[in-house]
Amino acid sequence: MVAEREKILIIGGGFGGLEAAKKLASASVEITLIDRANHHLFQPLLYQVATAGLSSPAIAAPIRHIFRKQKNLDVVLGEVTAIDVKRRVVTVAEGREYRYDALIVASGATHSYFGHDDWAQYAPGLKTLDDALDIRRRILMAFECAERETDPALKQAWLNFAVIGGGPTGVEMAGTLAEIAYRTLQDEFRHIDLSLARVMLIEGSERILAAYPADLSAKAQSQLERLGVEVKTKHQVSAIDGDGISIGSAGERIAAKTVVWAAGVAASPLGQQLGVPLDRAGRVIVGDDLSIPGYPEVYVIGDLAASTGGDGKLVPGVSPAAKQMGRIAAANILLGFVDKPKLKFSYKDYGALATIGRRSAIAAIGKIKFSGFPAWLFWLFVHIYFLIGFRSRLMVLTDWAWAYWTYERHARIIIGTEKR
Amino acid sequence: MVAEREKILIIGGGFGGLEAAKKLASASVEITLIDRANHHLFQPLLYQVATAGLSSPAIAAPIRHIFRKQKNLDVVLGEVTAIDVKRRVVTVAEGREYRYDALIVASGATHSYFGHDDWAQYAPGLKTLDDALDIRRRILMAFECAERETDPALKQAWLNFAVIGGGPTGVEMAGTLAEIAYRTLQDEFRHIDLSLARVMLIEGSERILAAYPADLSAKAQSQLERLGVEVKTKHQVSAIDGDGISIGSAGERIAAKTVVWAAGVAASPLGQQLGVPLDRAGRVIVGDDLSIPGYPEVYVIGDLAASTGGDGKLVPGVSPAAKQMGRIAAANILLGFVDKPKLKFSYKDYGALATIGRRSAIAAIGKIKFSGFPAWLFWLFVHIYFLIGFRSRLMVLTDWAWAYWTYERHARIIIGTEKR
Repeated sequence: MVAEREKILIIGGGFGGLEAAKKLASASVEITLIDRANHHLFQPLLYQVATAGLSSPAIAAPIRHIFRKQKNLDVVLGEVTAIDVKRRVVTVAEGREYRYDALIVASGATHSYFGHDDWAQYAPGLKTLDDALDIRRRILMAFECAERETDPALKQAWLNFAVIGGGPTGVEMAGTLAEIAYRTLQDEFRHIDLSLARVMLIEGSERILAAYPADLSAKAQSQLERLGVEVKTKHQVSAIDGDGISIGSAGERIAAKTVVWAAGVAASPLGQQLGVPLDRAGRVIVGDDLSIPGYPEVYVIGDLAASTGGDGKLVPGVSPAAKQMGRIAAANILLGFVDKPKLKFSYKDYGALATIGRRSAIAAIGKIKFSGFPAWLFWLFVHIYFLIGFRSRLMVLTDWAWAYWTYERHARIIIGTEKR
Repeated sequence: MVAEREKILIIGGGFGGLEAAKKLASASVEITLIDRANHHLFQPLLYQVATAGLSSPAIAAPIRHIFRKQKNLDVVLGEVTAIDVKRRVVTVAEGREYRYDALIVASGATHSYFGHDDWAQYAPGLKTLDDALDIRRRILMAFECAERETDPALKQAWLNFAVIGGGPTGVEMAGTLAEIAYRTLQDEFRHIDLSLARVMLIEGSERILAAYPADLSAKAQSQLERLGVEVKTKHQVSAIDGDGISIGSAGERIAAKTVVWAAGVAASPLGQQLGVPLDRAGRVIVGDDLSIPGYPEVYVIGDLAASTGGDGKLVPGVSPAAKQMGRIAAANILLGFVDKPKLKFSYKDYGALATIGRRSAIAAIGKIKFSGFPAWLFWLFVHIYFLIGFRSRLMVLTDWAWAYWTYERHARIIIGTEKR
């Protein structure tokens, strides 16, 4: 009788889930990777899709394609609706059940409107390709509506763009929006004066990029302002509707037909299925080995995990952290199968890097801080490096020629489930 | 007093409308170009978007961008709802009216289901980027559904693909589908045997590519069969539903969950607004100068025009014909303004070219006929040449690097008006 191989289930094909699955490539196990999209997304460049700089296929790769040679892995396209840690069963939409011996939950994060879910219709967030294409359409249509509008106040409202949240995504979005309004669209319209366009970056706290050293925040702000962005810190949004936003309790109005939400992130609701303590942001509090209390075979990694990573500080929700967690969780699963002591997760921080617009960025690598063009070159290098590592995507350069001579098709990306 | 410049209205930003507008670049006139999409589409490669070989932005360019330097031209994004040739007014959705001194109607063609409009939901046609992305999603989801289906008959139905119509689009689609099933997806699925996939090309008449010489049709068929396509000629489709198609009056069933419609083309309904005789396919019967009877200032060009082009034969609905008509209509408008005799349109046929799949094609250039790899190389050369001519598109090769150093953003493509 052949011994049945251990079943490992991974929920989520983001950076963490992918890394864990790859780490298990040569193990004698049966891996099932479940994701609700058919593609892995290179999220650091998602804002480029939202701002029409890149096409969707340029930053996404079919998960099946990534794992086509990894014979111990089965990809399932589907939405996980329930996790039963007692029965060790995961349910996928339409009722299909998957049994596991070890589970990695890596379903990431979504955007949070702090209890104001009705804001979502006016101020979409940026997490998926669908989101990015929705924001792209809104931005492009805003200029079209301004072009055809004859009422001056409404025309201006169509030319006003508000990005809410001064974190890296908000900064990238605002910088690129300014570039679109003041540079890209130059000469294209006959009935609007693009110099009247306003791009506002709205941040509730004292400064943008609060996770960075204060001097780099200040540099980022002055770089954004040079691009034409109005940076409004200490502006708490109190309402959003189809015509603009309100600030603070006094309700100061800012007219803006186009609003982008880059303020709040909430952990994936799947964390609630595990029946263990969550932190205030809905993240699952994991142990040193990234497993959850009482279930040593269940691991939570990436943006969904609240890990203190050895030094007591909460590990940030960034892709290098997710990858590092993925490797440790994979190793610990194999150690668990043979009853060996598990590894402790310790986050290695390689620094922080945010791009502000064309040829400008800030970087804090250990004790070294730099900004401007050198930081932007560094940002470009890092992203091209990881895009190549992730196989497909500097390849956007040679996609067409390549696709013709090989049999690969890089654009096999399902966007949403409705029409288109 | 400054004399008011003559107003020229062009409906449609396809090959014909674009060419006419460019031809008028240095004329002292006011041009308005109206299109319901914000982009010009390089339709000859649309099947590549449907089959995920290219991203949407790779074959589309914003019309505003194309004409940003042409100061006598105003682009209007909108759907024309009425043409009043007596009042010389065109109405765009939402009631905006545009007056003209001369009009070019170049609104092209759409697909026709020969009175069976209910077939559209099961068998989408391929005319717009929306169509292409819809077909792409259906194709990719079919393999996913086959992968998760446990009933053998249903599994097979998901693996059966029927392309209806053996013209160039049908041939390209079927060839590429076979390539996807038998090559591209290799190794990616664990629960389906891709060698069981069937790609059927269904044609009602005696042979595929009926517009080509018979020996080239036969070559195309054998090339398709070598790729694995089942070519079924003399198969008249009598019904289409969610499970497959019926053939002939006996109603022979072919199970296929994925059906693509490449059979019928109908002229744009705007032709009916002109109040002049149409041919059986709904095309506007134009005079030698491409104007319509009784209205020498109204021209119809491209797929919407039924022109006999000098030699008495109907000019085919292909892009070179549309471009040639666009040039003549533009010239005739200017001649009309100064009461000079107009030019007669005479179609110059450079030959026909159809690709069948990877590295295979057929070509008939004047008396020269060739097929296989040389024809494919020629096809590739011609398409790359016209893509470059059309400014953006071999540029897909260098898009990313280019977009970073210049301020152009090639992906500014609005797809549809709903979400995404």
